[in-house]
Amino acid sequence: MNLRCVECGKVLPPEMLYECDDCGGILEVIHPNGVETDGALQTSMWRYSKKLPVRSPDHIVSLYEGMTPMHRALRMEQSLSGFRGIVYIKDETTNPTGSFKDRLVSVAISRAQELGCNGIICASSGNAGASAAAYAAKVGLKAIIVAPSHTPIEKLTQISGYGATVVLIDGHYSHSYRFAERLAKEFNYVNVTTTYLNPYGTDGLKTVGYELYEQTGGEIPDYVFVPVGSGPLVKGVYQGFQEALRESGDARKGIPKIIAVQAAGCSPIVKAFYSGDMEVTAWDQPATIASGISDPLIGYEKDGTYTLRLIRESGGGAVSVTDHEIRNAMRILAQSEGVLAEPTGACSLAGFIKMQQNHRISQDSKVVCMVTGHGYKDFKVYREMSPVVHQLKSPDDTESIRQLLCLSPD
Amino acid sequence: MNLRCVECGKVLPPEMLYECDDCGGILEVIHPNGVETDGALQTSMWRYSKKLPVRSPDHIVSLYEGMTPMHRALRMEQSLSGFRGIVYIKDETTNPTGSFKDRLVSVAISRAQELGCNGIICASSGNAGASAAAYAAKVGLKAIIVAPSHTPIEKLTQISGYGATVVLIDGHYSHSYRFAERLAKEFNYVNVTTTYLNPYGTDGLKTVGYELYEQTGGEIPDYVFVPVGSGPLVKGVYQGFQEALRESGDARKGIPKIIAVQAAGCSPIVKAFYSGDMEVTAWDQPATIASGISDPLIGYEKDGTYTLRLIRESGGGAVSVTDHEIRNAMRILAQSEGVLAEPTGACSLAGFIKMQQNHRISQDSKVVCMVTGHGYKDFKVYREMSPVVHQLKSPDDTESIRQLLCLSPD
Repeated sequence: MNLRCVECGKVLPPEMLYECDDCGGILEVIHPNGVETDGALQTSMWRYSKKLPVRSPDHIVSLYEGMTPMHRALRMEQSLSGFRGIVYIKDETTNPTGSFKDRLVSVAISRAQELGCNGIICASSGNAGASAAAYAAKVGLKAIIVAPSHTPIEKLTQISGYGATVVLIDGHYSHSYRFAERLAKEFNYVNVTTTYLNPYGTDGLKTVGYELYEQTGGEIPDYVFVPVGSGPLVKGVYQGFQEALRESGDARKGIPKIIAVQAAGCSPIVKAFYSGDMEVTAWDQPATIASGISDPLIGYEKDGTYTLRLIRESGGGAVSVTDHEIRNAMRILAQSEGVLAEPTGACSLAGFIKMQQNHRISQDSKVVCMVTGHGYKDFKVYREMSPVVHQLKSPDDTESIRQLLCLSPD
Repeated sequence: MNLRCVECGKVLPPEMLYECDDCGGILEVIHPNGVETDGALQTSMWRYSKKLPVRSPDHIVSLYEGMTPMHRALRMEQSLSGFRGIVYIKDETTNPTGSFKDRLVSVAISRAQELGCNGIICASSGNAGASAAAYAAKVGLKAIIVAPSHTPIEKLTQISGYGATVVLIDGHYSHSYRFAERLAKEFNYVNVTTTYLNPYGTDGLKTVGYELYEQTGGEIPDYVFVPVGSGPLVKGVYQGFQEALRESGDARKGIPKIIAVQAAGCSPIVKAFYSGDMEVTAWDQPATIASGISDPLIGYEKDGTYTLRLIRESGGGAVSVTDHEIRNAMRILAQSEGVLAEPTGACSLAGFIKMQQNHRISQDSKVVCMVTGHGYKDFKVYREMSPVVHQLKSPDDTESIRQLLCLSPD
């Protein structure tokens, strides 16, 4: 196992490093040479442990993350005018703490245990923090979670429920990011922030690609829609498919086109994609209900640039969606497919619907939408848009229920 | 497949029946003769489809419920004075809608589809309703959920998020139960209320017993602690183990002792157990934070009586826990094991701790605690008991964080 800079290619030892010491570039894990696992871990993403960057099974910290379901979205397919393809929902909401971040954090904290660790720090818009807090609790590590002051109360409740120390900082996510970086150095804690910062964590996300490859039975999807803040999940899907294809001898097939979906109110990568830029510029004033991807990338624009490169290499694209389109997708997911997503989690579906309706993808495409986080993470949005709950005046008033259901009398 | 009355033994056809037409007794499914399934369903509880009461794979309505993780609770074991045994957490919080009810509802709605169904009704303290709403959405069935007015707002938000019609009734759960029964008849909807009412639904819970048998590798646990309202999960654990043992030729081993855990503020079954009664009497005024098991059983006391019989037959027992003990167990689960449970879900652990500390079980016991529902179902309880979230005055104020963590300067 080694680390390698994705910019200059320099190879570094597999220590607790966060950037290339030559060029400051993003690091990735190469040749992880993991371990065999058996028993219960086979029902989690650790069934791929041989490809994950942890040397000893004793260091694995797992709450049985990953191996999430993939649903065929039949009712939705039928409701889309002109569409003749297939849509799958990759339901990451069933992860232990309710988001895909568990994959990243499980590997990051396992590797931190292996390398020696006093405690962990995580800058988070909420989900990564909940995940970091839970896995730290599981092994008794101290955890500091740095989050923007406007983080949804549900996410803060979840984080502090696991016993982590929650520090709120005014301003957007990039402020939290910088402060966490400083705290990690000052306290000598491992930084498990879920941008591309922690190379071991990012490596855990490739399990999404492995699973999608298996779950689609080798029939590679045409498109995978991914909600994107800084974008490590794009790398996870890309690298996972690439490795799965190579190992199965299917390399000729080519990986799916990856579509990065961002909120219209914070879409630095989408902007760069359509401007034809090679580099991403930070966003100024994020404004969206999709708190999980409301990341202006200030100070780590290189993360966005790397994600942009991966999207283009996959032959994919980018799309931004409005808060209205996000709410619509949340409603469809919940009311047609029984999957409750937070705004960020529904962005993938919102992006797909937009591109399908604008004829930007073929009407017989095979599509996967990554639903990255559970609706409970931000119940307020549902409360604001949900149908009214009916307080019954009298137990004899069944007629009013009939009206609610638009039923005619029997 | 047939139905059979657990009281008088009368055998009835496998139609949409809710009680014995002779004696009014609880019905159970016998000889379900299910179907083979393959592919993705193998990662859900439908891997046991041959033993489930659904005749055609086309009728199966699944969100990939069941096959939930079982965690060894290592940190907690070490913290219990004198304990030398093993504690497992069966983590039902990772079910699609966050509780074990998904198992019951998935089978109940699948069978309803098979028998023909205009819509579904469910009386619920919240979790069953969320589950019923989600599965109904998945197949486009109308759903009416009847819930007590004091149901936690998170549960109501979740239910209406899935698009169900939510009707609130003043008073405790038994009022909702009776009203749902009446509505089901009036509208000719299928009643999927998750007491013992729907025999197909109850049958789905035996998958818990099958999984526990597999996950403990045939080493039968000494005790399974189960949070109990009316008690179908007790039957699920009992019957699942019994069938798994019989099929594996291990029948001599005997099933685990099942301990029913109820809240001190609503414990009709515990009361009957310690009084040596053969029949359960309804509870008068339920008062507990464990809303999911706050069921006084008024009008269907027979459900409690049947559960009591199963507990005794298993050689098990019963214990009640106070709200304080429940909160303590919630804290331990979250902060030592990384599992966020709602109050009801943590009752099993609270009951185990109480019996262990009072030397009512052997100190080298092998124990399973059923954690039945996710903490997000009732965030208010966490908000009231969680450590404070810290708003940082200035980004330079790292000293205050150091103090929070009780760290000495490097």
